[in-house]
Amino acid sequence: MDWWRRDDLHRDGGRLTFAGHDVEALAAQADGPVFLYSAARVLENAARVRQALAATGMGGELFYAVKANRFAPLLALLADSGLAGADVCSPGELAHALDCGFPEARVSYTGVSVSRLDHEVLARHPRILLNCDSLAMVRQVGERTPGRAIGLRLNPALGVGYGDNDRLRYSGARTTKFGVYREQLDEAVALAARADLRIERVHFHLGCGYLDPQLGAWEEAAAACAAMLDRLPDVTEVNVGGGLGAPHRASDAPLDLDRWSAALARLFGGRGVRLSAEPGDYLVKDAGVLVLEVTGVERKRDTLFVGVDGGFNLHPEPAFYDLPCEPVPCVTRPGAAEPVTVAGNINEALDLWCADKPLPPMREGDRLALLNAGGYGAAMSSDHCMRGRFRERLLR
Amino acid sequence: MDWWRRDDLHRDGGRLTFAGHDVEALAAQADGPVFLYSAARVLENAARVRQALAATGMGGELFYAVKANRFAPLLALLADSGLAGADVCSPGELAHALDCGFPEARVSYTGVSVSRLDHEVLARHPRILLNCDSLAMVRQVGERTPGRAIGLRLNPALGVGYGDNDRLRYSGARTTKFGVYREQLDEAVALAARADLRIERVHFHLGCGYLDPQLGAWEEAAAACAAMLDRLPDVTEVNVGGGLGAPHRASDAPLDLDRWSAALARLFGGRGVRLSAEPGDYLVKDAGVLVLEVTGVERKRDTLFVGVDGGFNLHPEPAFYDLPCEPVPCVTRPGAAEPVTVAGNINEALDLWCADKPLPPMREGDRLALLNAGGYGAAMSSDHCMRGRFRERLLR
Repeated sequence: MDWWRRDDLHRDGGRLTFAGHDVEALAAQADGPVFLYSAARVLENAARVRQALAATGMGGELFYAVKANRFAPLLALLADSGLAGADVCSPGELAHALDCGFPEARVSYTGVSVSRLDHEVLARHPRILLNCDSLAMVRQVGERTPGRAIGLRLNPALGVGYGDNDRLRYSGARTTKFGVYREQLDEAVALAARADLRIERVHFHLGCGYLDPQLGAWEEAAAACAAMLDRLPDVTEVNVGGGLGAPHRASDAPLDLDRWSAALARLFGGRGVRLSAEPGDYLVKDAGVLVLEVTGVERKRDTLFVGVDGGFNLHPEPAFYDLPCEPVPCVTRPGAAEPVTVAGNINEALDLWCADKPLPPMREGDRLALLNAGGYGAAMSSDHCMRGRFRERLLR
Repeated sequence: MDWWRRDDLHRDGGRLTFAGHDVEALAAQADGPVFLYSAARVLENAARVRQALAATGMGGELFYAVKANRFAPLLALLADSGLAGADVCSPGELAHALDCGFPEARVSYTGVSVSRLDHEVLARHPRILLNCDSLAMVRQVGERTPGRAIGLRLNPALGVGYGDNDRLRYSGARTTKFGVYREQLDEAVALAARADLRIERVHFHLGCGYLDPQLGAWEEAAAACAAMLDRLPDVTEVNVGGGLGAPHRASDAPLDLDRWSAALARLFGGRGVRLSAEPGDYLVKDAGVLVLEVTGVERKRDTLFVGVDGGFNLHPEPAFYDLPCEPVPCVTRPGAAEPVTVAGNINEALDLWCADKPLPPMREGDRLALLNAGGYGAAMSSDHCMRGRFRERLLR
């Protein structure tokens, strides 16, 4: 039994089905690498988080973190659904989100190192929800648009990483660039007051890809943020950020949203605030697969290499973040599984999709689906080696 | 005294000069991040390697590895200079190199995981120099274009990394996807013979960014390749790959090309072959700087952050490969240096240009040049967070 099997993702008779489509047949229509996204799965994921927020009795807005996947049809789908607003982190994302149909009032901007030019754009959009990440940003916003309502991004100096992955820490023992620390809070409030900025929202992002085992630590960090709230009397909305994880390995269990929701109710109940959230990966990660074609199968010394026609530049997470994509043949050939190393077509040694992973026999021309490619794949892709061409399709 | 000081890169009276230009003045003309490249430095670097090859008495072609930097004016400059041909690794790079003016006969293709569609393109270019990276590729080329002359990429199972950087190993103790191993050589020869492919060239790429301390190990690996030559009687050209390093830190000394050249003469002299090389980084890395603007300076707990208007998506080496870019203020303010952490504008904790690096005082609106940004910067850049906009300028 495949650990990743779902109603909308399974193989029967050896053929992989995703969102009601035969993956091999669809991918064969494309010349080269293709990302397939399931519209229904994205909407289901969004509805699930909305429900969990609503269960707290304080449910507010869901802001989809556009940086996870900005494929225009997918953004348009979410905007049309009404299930979510959009969180953006650059003027480019802001324009793109508006172009795809999100109304200004449902767009939040949570940026870091906001530049002079960025501020010029932000000043032209007084209705979007601005979350300030630093004292500098509070002062800069105050200079350009005094009287504006703002959010404050808080950093409680506690947080959870993606398992033990140091690359993905937003907050925690090591000081990060994100947010306003407790020691800075008085000055932030003073700076805001000086420019008549009303701090009506707080935002915190305490981790990335967390699952059940990290929920305890996450709750502790969230409690530290809740304590900071006492010093911000005008706050009516608490955005608890994103970071909700999706299972990547057979040993990962899905995040228990009931537990998450109960923790939120416990921490923020009775404060008269609305709770919002800002999931990115959670909405799209498991709603996308990347399909590649096998270019050759060849043993080199102790390793059986399966070459494919796309590399880590299309989806950097496996090579750079130690976040695996489960490889699944689109059509499973009969025969015993054997450990293989799936290698991309980029001229770098690290360009491997997986190493020593047991797979059924593969041949030139076969296709391989890489699961969990819906988030931070295409969105982070580069044209390294001029291998950056791919298609994306939203499956209905 | 700045360790990176050169005739064409220095600061005098506190202002940074590069290729005869005042960097602050140039960068102020751009809206946002800008890469500056020195035409003269690229040509000097190319001439230096040509000379070292010529000194062996067996000097052949220099193939510039396009993947390091594909900025069209820079490629046109190199093509015009006649100092180098081009090495490409994808159909996209092949078309781009030809479009920029490299003649087909001076273009080599050294690919990995070459796909069905790639082969269709390659078959349309019978005059380019094809280096086969695997048995599969020898067979595939033979099926499409029997009788063609080919090169064979060899992997001696020895090699040198970038210092101890495991991410950048092309060959060595761990089996990599690259090249034909000694155990595969007989089969490669047989496959070639079956399709009447003439193996007239070998290619090996034994390391990446090597400097003097790695030259001994490099020579050992090259000797292993030389030994494989005995089994390939038709070979008239040996391409010794790239990987020649540039200093990244004060403690790095420049590579001694005389030593490199002497080693090549020793290893390949008397074999009646021409020697070619395929430098990428060596030509462009130290010929480029990335200039960013300071968005804010702010202490958070134990760390003084200098925020800038560009992130690791513009140049992934510092964050992902532990290859630092030396930060230099375009205009040095008076005052004591203090350790700072330079943070980019991407919503990821790893998006830091450097940590705890002593720098003179910096203020909002100041500009910072990051040295050694000429290779694998723009070429590997992504539009992550839609922060992928930048300018590039070739300085004459």
